[in-house]
Amino acid sequence: MKLWEKGIPTDIKTDLFTVGNDRELDLVLAEYDVIGSIAHAKMLGSTDLLTTTEVQDLVMALEDILVDIKKGDFIIEPDFEDVHSKVEYLLIEKLGDTGKKIHTARSRNDQVLVDVHLFLKKELTTIKQQVKELFELLITMAQQHKNVLLPGYTHLQVAMPSSFGMWFSAYAESLIDDVIMLNAALAVIDQNPLGSAAGYGSSFPIDRSFTTKELGFTTLKYNSVAAQMSRGKTEKTAAFAMASVAGTLSKLAMDICLYLSQNFNFITLPQHLTTGSSIMPHKKNPDIFELIRGKCNKIQALPYELTLITNNLPSGYHRDLQLLKEGLFPALQTLKSCLEMAVFTIKEIKVNHNILDDKKYDYLFTVDALNELVTSGIPFRDAYKIVGEQVDNGTFISPKATQHTHEGSINNLCLEEITAKMEQLF
Amino acid sequence: MKLWEKGIPTDIKTDLFTVGNDRELDLVLAEYDVIGSIAHAKMLGSTDLLTTTEVQDLVMALEDILVDIKKGDFIIEPDFEDVHSKVEYLLIEKLGDTGKKIHTARSRNDQVLVDVHLFLKKELTTIKQQVKELFELLITMAQQHKNVLLPGYTHLQVAMPSSFGMWFSAYAESLIDDVIMLNAALAVIDQNPLGSAAGYGSSFPIDRSFTTKELGFTTLKYNSVAAQMSRGKTEKTAAFAMASVAGTLSKLAMDICLYLSQNFNFITLPQHLTTGSSIMPHKKNPDIFELIRGKCNKIQALPYELTLITNNLPSGYHRDLQLLKEGLFPALQTLKSCLEMAVFTIKEIKVNHNILDDKKYDYLFTVDALNELVTSGIPFRDAYKIVGEQVDNGTFISPKATQHTHEGSINNLCLEEITAKMEQLF
Amino acid sequence: MKLWEKGIPTDIKTDLFTVGNDRELDLVLAEYDVIGSIAHAKMLGSTDLLTTTEVQDLVMALEDILVDIKKGDFIIEPDFEDVHSKVEYLLIEKLGDTGKKIHTARSRNDQVLVDVHLFLKKELTTIKQQVKELFELLITMAQQHKNVLLPGYTHLQVAMPSSFGMWFSAYAESLIDDVIMLNAALAVIDQNPLGSAAGYGSSFPIDRSFTTKELGFTTLKYNSVAAQMSRGKTEKTAAFAMASVAGTLSKLAMDICLYLSQNFNFITLPQHLTTGSSIMPHKKNPDIFELIRGKCNKIQALPYELTLITNNLPSGYHRDLQLLKEGLFPALQTLKSCLEMAVFTIKEIKVNHNILDDKKYDYLFTVDALNELVTSGIPFRDAYKIVGEQVDNGTFISPKATQHTHEGSINNLCLEEITAKMEQLF
Amino acid sequence: MKLWEKGIPTDIKTDLFTVGNDRELDLVLAEYDVIGSIAHAKMLGSTDLLTTTEVQDLVMALEDILVDIKKGDFIIEPDFEDVHSKVEYLLIEKLGDTGKKIHTARSRNDQVLVDVHLFLKKELTTIKQQVKELFELLITMAQQHKNVLLPGYTHLQVAMPSSFGMWFSAYAESLIDDVIMLNAALAVIDQNPLGSAAGYGSSFPIDRSFTTKELGFTTLKYNSVAAQMSRGKTEKTAAFAMASVAGTLSKLAMDICLYLSQNFNFITLPQHLTTGSSIMPHKKNPDIFELIRGKCNKIQALPYELTLITNNLPSGYHRDLQLLKEGLFPALQTLKSCLEMAVFTIKEIKVNHNILDDKKYDYLFTVDALNELVTSGIPFRDAYKIVGEQVDNGTFISPKATQHTHEGSINNLCLEEITAKMEQLF
Repeated sequence: MKLWEKGIPTDIKTDLFTVGNDRELDLVLAEYDVIGSIAHAKMLGSTDLLTTTEVQDLVMALEDILVDIKKGDFIIEPDFEDVHSKVEYLLIEKLGDTGKKIHTARSRNDQVLVDVHLFLKKELTTIKQQVKELFELLITMAQQHKNVLLPGYTHLQVAMPSSFGMWFSAYAESLIDDVIMLNAALAVIDQNPLGSAAGYGSSFPIDRSFTTKELGFTTLKYNSVAAQMSRGKTEKTAAFAMASVAGTLSKLAMDICLYLSQNFNFITLPQHLTTGSSIMPHKKNPDIFELIRGKCNKIQALPYELTLITNNLPSGYHRDLQLLKEGLFPALQTLKSCLEMAVFTIKEIKVNHNILDDKKYDYLFTVDALNELVTSGIPFRDAYKIVGEQVDNGTFISPKATQHTHEGSINNLCLEEITAKMEQLF
Repeated sequence: MKLWEKGIPTDIKTDLFTVGNDRELDLVLAEYDVIGSIAHAKMLGSTDLLTTTEVQDLVMALEDILVDIKKGDFIIEPDFEDVHSKVEYLLIEKLGDTGKKIHTARSRNDQVLVDVHLFLKKELTTIKQQVKELFELLITMAQQHKNVLLPGYTHLQVAMPSSFGMWFSAYAESLIDDVIMLNAALAVIDQNPLGSAAGYGSSFPIDRSFTTKELGFTTLKYNSVAAQMSRGKTEKTAAFAMASVAGTLSKLAMDICLYLSQNFNFITLPQHLTTGSSIMPHKKNPDIFELIRGKCNKIQALPYELTLITNNLPSGYHRDLQLLKEGLFPALQTLKSCLEMAVFTIKEIKVNHNILDDKKYDYLFTVDALNELVTSGIPFRDAYKIVGEQVDNGTFISPKATQHTHEGSINNLCLEEITAKMEQLF
Repeated sequence: MKLWEKGIPTDIKTDLFTVGNDRELDLVLAEYDVIGSIAHAKMLGSTDLLTTTEVQDLVMALEDILVDIKKGDFIIEPDFEDVHSKVEYLLIEKLGDTGKKIHTARSRNDQVLVDVHLFLKKELTTIKQQVKELFELLITMAQQHKNVLLPGYTHLQVAMPSSFGMWFSAYAESLIDDVIMLNAALAVIDQNPLGSAAGYGSSFPIDRSFTTKELGFTTLKYNSVAAQMSRGKTEKTAAFAMASVAGTLSKLAMDICLYLSQNFNFITLPQHLTTGSSIMPHKKNPDIFELIRGKCNKIQALPYELTLITNNLPSGYHRDLQLLKEGLFPALQTLKSCLEMAVFTIKEIKVNHNILDDKKYDYLFTVDALNELVTSGIPFRDAYKIVGEQVDNGTFISPKATQHTHEGSINNLCLEEITAKMEQLF
Repeated sequence: MKLWEKGIPTDIKTDLFTVGNDRELDLVLAEYDVIGSIAHAKMLGSTDLLTTTEVQDLVMALEDILVDIKKGDFIIEPDFEDVHSKVEYLLIEKLGDTGKKIHTARSRNDQVLVDVHLFLKKELTTIKQQVKELFELLITMAQQHKNVLLPGYTHLQVAMPSSFGMWFSAYAESLIDDVIMLNAALAVIDQNPLGSAAGYGSSFPIDRSFTTKELGFTTLKYNSVAAQMSRGKTEKTAAFAMASVAGTLSKLAMDICLYLSQNFNFITLPQHLTTGSSIMPHKKNPDIFELIRGKCNKIQALPYELTLITNNLPSGYHRDLQLLKEGLFPALQTLKSCLEMAVFTIKEIKVNHNILDDKKYDYLFTVDALNELVTSGIPFRDAYKIVGEQVDNGTFISPKATQHTHEGSINNLCLEEITAKMEQLF
């Protein structure tokens, strides 16, 4: 970003413009690029496109590179356009002609595709695990605070009694839907694109089922054109699932910011999780939750960015697709960090007791009162009128207690059933 | 829309503003509203909140209304705010006090939730079937034209040989990913929200498992707050899946519009599927595919509309949620019509033969020529140089034929494997 | 929407698909279409492409149609594809060969372009006036309640003293930025596209300066290809300005919904502007403001819909562009109704007094206390520590009064300066 | 991004999460932060809140920092939260108590606001200049190639004659609309927010007109709450204008990519501006224009990201607003680099001559032929039928030449009028 300044020679500017921060983004793909190359080399051996010795040499050299990557010793110097050319360079440097053979029967498009598929599979699986961790925390906190009542709101108006048990476990159950979306994205991702070459296949008699098995994919993306078209579509699908998780987290963060306001005062955070103000000495701001909210809202814009980049492009590769990584890769990191911070801070939340003692919450119980009339035989619409008149006359007396027993209500949270529903998805 | 003009009394304007076109949108929900009420009435009987006679009377009256709805005789007059109040009015008119009891233990939020869940389940199931129909057509056309070659492009530049077999079946296989998304959306939708009342449950001892079974839902959305939060989230999830289907259709339509251009001339449409110009007597325009593209692009904006309406709202019902229907309901109709028109018109496409005779496509076969050198033992990077020089010298002779045999290549389309993958999802 | 059902013959379906609800949308354009045709006819006369008699006949017949339109008697029957063909039909019916000559030297693209430009110019001018009306109301209310204090929040935490004067006039001043955007959109719109034919001009020696003057446009969109490219761009620019207004309104509505909550209780609405609940007899919900918020949030999605429809289409007309009207036209109505309802309801807001008596607002004045120390000579960072310790020890005593005198502060609202800034834009 | 890994202590993670890459983003603000502080210090002197000596000391120290910033010697170490605390630290280190006084009568919100306003004013002014440069190049190329004909398309079908003169200058004129939007954004930005403190003003008797003049702002954002609300709104407004420019550039790049395809072959790029393929030795890909298209499409998603971050937040500062910089700052760099690369590469475009010799373009002239019939007295609708029959019979003979003379047509490009329209905006 800082490099785009006056006085830079044109060819360097062109390189900056076309390669951009691709080298940096490619570093996270390096591991998967090498794993893909190992599978590709073995397959070339199994189809006699390479000799056994060539395969052994390539695999050994690639495993050495993998060790370097995991140690953090792998770098992509500015001389190289991307991770693929750097790895190929290292192989040729070490193995000569054998190194030159690794690119037989594949193209860089192929490599990016398989790298991104392997990477996204790993990342979304991690996110899925983190969602489960947050789910379990919310269930635990729901269980712990199940008897502490809370006003429920509709239209931001005091409406009916709720509880911390209801509130925490509502978000837990809501996360189940997000895991359904993550599983769908994983199913879309879990199809091997390797072997599609530049997007139209090739005349080499390769064995794509071999690499599918070797790389642990469940199935092939058979059609080579479809494999190429999965660029963009895979990323968008991942982004839809990420937006789903982010939407839930953002809403939870909004509730928390509201409940921490002096005007609600339903919950408290320990001081080390709040920040001060540069001019107001009394401030204790919930920045972490504001940032979870903001970051998750930003993530919800990601599918739109990816759609705009890919939309109305005819089939076949276009260089535009390189730009998909720029928004997606940091968003994955952001979502993981939001989930980690959510688990880390939500478990520190202290819930306040006796909230409903404040008389502004008395009308919470009008429906309970009304329901009692109904149970005693008065039709619903008539009972509604009676309690309505009590409210208008100021004669309404709040029962101030609740006996909600149906599935999913205050005194019957069904936490086990909700947990069972989540576990089915793992 | 036309009604918002000068001279209208304020209370009517307020009604127009708050109710808007809700009555019209609610008509598509009427059927599901009555089905939901029948299940609710039976449940109230099973839990002794209504007598057996009351239940019978309510169910019979509701079934009469259902008959009217299916005949198209059901209307919501301007006196009624929505479908729910109209149905309740009819019941009270017919059954008196018994009619007044139908609203026991539920709220309008409850009703909208269950209506929308039932409606979306039906609509997405229809869309899923339509996608399958299009899939099968594309597989048939791929099979039919599998030997007709086509230039494959990258960067919109002539790249490598492809075929109509590859092209048609690429979109078929791509649709499989969309069905995975539809199935995920259906799984999110297929959870009974009924019984959550205004979003916090109630003190009535209702039996939510009863209505879950009665309405054919696979499971419950247990937590009442989570059930209420599914408003917005359900719609967004449906919109993600719809956007996925629409993205594939839009790309296919873009290819078709390009291939119909005189500059490509790969395919032809019968005249009755093209339109003329008001000033150019020679024009035969592919309006249907342009409209499929445009309508599907519009559908891809739907998730963002729904996100903007719901985002940063704290938990609990807000009136804003009423506006979710406005964009979503017509978009469902649009997507169904795009799929129907796609099936209807794609089967009329005539593919042109001998496309590759044009010499501008000769370089398509450089990679095939190069691969032959590789197979004869020359390392890939050296063969690349040799053919490159032939191209630069003008000495390159195109093989003009292809033998691509790996899975998913021109001569091995794997249509059966692709079909099997799709069928697993039904 | 309801028409897309089984059993409809294919040609009717094709018509439904391609024409859609265009006839209905075109009705709002009818007036501008006729005005455009009158100017076009006169220009054809001035360049001798029509005789004086022909021009007179056409203008008289067109003015008759205009009268019908204004009376509401103009309809577009299903036999006609759009407003343009209906008007041309009426002219031919009445004038025979002369009627056939109106389409000389123009195309339907031309007509839609000029219709949309004239329509948007009218609509955005109306919206600009409505914004001014809201601005003036907010200034009046700021003046009226300038002495009533309110807590100011940062991070949703009680922060520093504010006032109703500050709050109302903040939104007034913010609307000035929206008018700047509306003026920009109007400048983009106020360029005559008529005469660009199908987007490439024509061989007729027409006089585009004549129609520019006749139609009251400030300048021409000279280049015919640029005129055609303004389709989509004009709509997007209008949508950006509309999104700007909508963003301000939505934020104001959010504040109002919050301030009406029992947990803030800063303002009150008369009962006739609130709605009840079907199950909670005590509810008084601020539905109008929730709908202003939701509708304005939906409008903020409009630019993205229009971008998605037009993006990555090469230059030249595409049928996709027809779909721009579908989202834009109702959004204009919605924005006008939101502005009208905002003016209508905001003036009924009652502000509550003595809000700051509640002790939870005491810390609002820490900065005022701190500033007094600074004024007495203590460096800011040291004064910050002193007051911080008072807060921690519980020894802080709130001054409970404010003397903020700089421009734009509680006791110096600069309402005249703000009003002058707005008036410069009209 | 790479730092978010296992094994990092929690407090560092919290810091990473809350501060993020803010230090890096803040570096581009450093210059403006110091300029803002100089103006603030002088104003504090003019209102006797600081002594003359204090002001002199502060200004000199700040000017030293400014020198360091311009030399690239200014860094923000991880110990500092942001640029503001680093600058304040340097002042205190150098000036002791005097340094502590710089934060008198302002807050960090204040500083960010004024920094962002100054920065955006500078950046949008630069972009506006770059747009003008591109405009002038396009006008020059239109003039240069005004006689080279080109097919004009509608529906991607061969439609009517156009020319390189028409095509180049169409994009030039289209850029004028983008400058109108940039000017609007600049007008919104050019209002001084300094002095609003934490968003509610303060009790210090500061002189905001003084800093307005000192910083070169045209006017004040008077109301302190409005000044704070401009956070988010200013960025969105800038993003709307940037999206406008980006939309035009993206469409131009799409045309260029299409025209470079062998299927159009209208233009040619020198080889050093194309890139090769890793497997196809014959490829010359227009990556630069694909990346301009893709990057500009990504920029068009920016307003949506900013809207999602800010939408439905009540008035007053929220930490979420910090995230606005993340998307906006790099997008400004990207847009500047796209404009620079566009100018750099478009001037290298070679246009191909004799394009219309290809017989597939013969029907381009049907309208010209038809118009000749009209000029000879045949009503338009009858002439349309005659030429239509000629086309159907194969008897149509193309005139193959054009005489389009009206404003904005092939033989009357009005380049001077278009240039005059642009110049009015500078």
